[in-house]
Amino acid sequence: MLKAAVYVTMKQNVLDPQGKASQEALKALGYEEVSSVRIGKYIELKLDTNNRAEAEERVKAMCEQLLVNTVVEDYRFELTEE
Amino acid sequence: MLKAAVYVTMKQNVLDPQGKASQEALKALGYEEVSSVRIGKYIELKLDTNNRAEAEERVKAMCEQLLVNTVVEDYRFELTEE
Repeated sequence: MLKAAVYVTMKQNVLDPQGKASQEALKALGYEEVSSVRIGKYIELKLDTNNRAEAEERVKAMCEQLLVNTVVEDYRFELTEE
Repeated sequence: MLKAAVYVTMKQNVLDPQGKASQEALKALGYEEVSSVRIGKYIELKLDTNNRAEAEERVKAMCEQLLVNTVVEDYRFELTEE
């Protein structure tokens, strides 16, 4: 069994309103040191396979077909033994 | 400057409808090996400080006050030099 941890973030040049709103809220709570907040998705996939090379390819395809909007989002992932 | 990477996931005993829907969609696309999908938040905070101990405390407080719903979500974070 393998586990894929996928980190999805907005591309740097794309506005992140949710991040901006959280930053303002944190400042209002007194956390002045926060200079930027970017909010993305953290996805955990459990895979019934031990074939690492194949899993690498297929997780990439799953991200680009369904899990990530590659027009406005970047992604990276890590595979670990479960 | 420090960077905090915060990983927010639904508690294990809490239903994750978004994860379930993604799992069904992946299966429909032929990715039968996916046995579970859990979707959470990935938050990147940039902090204008180099005081690691203080940053540790304050990021924990930011999570529990604003960024995380501790009733249904778990979280962990990592601090790195930016």
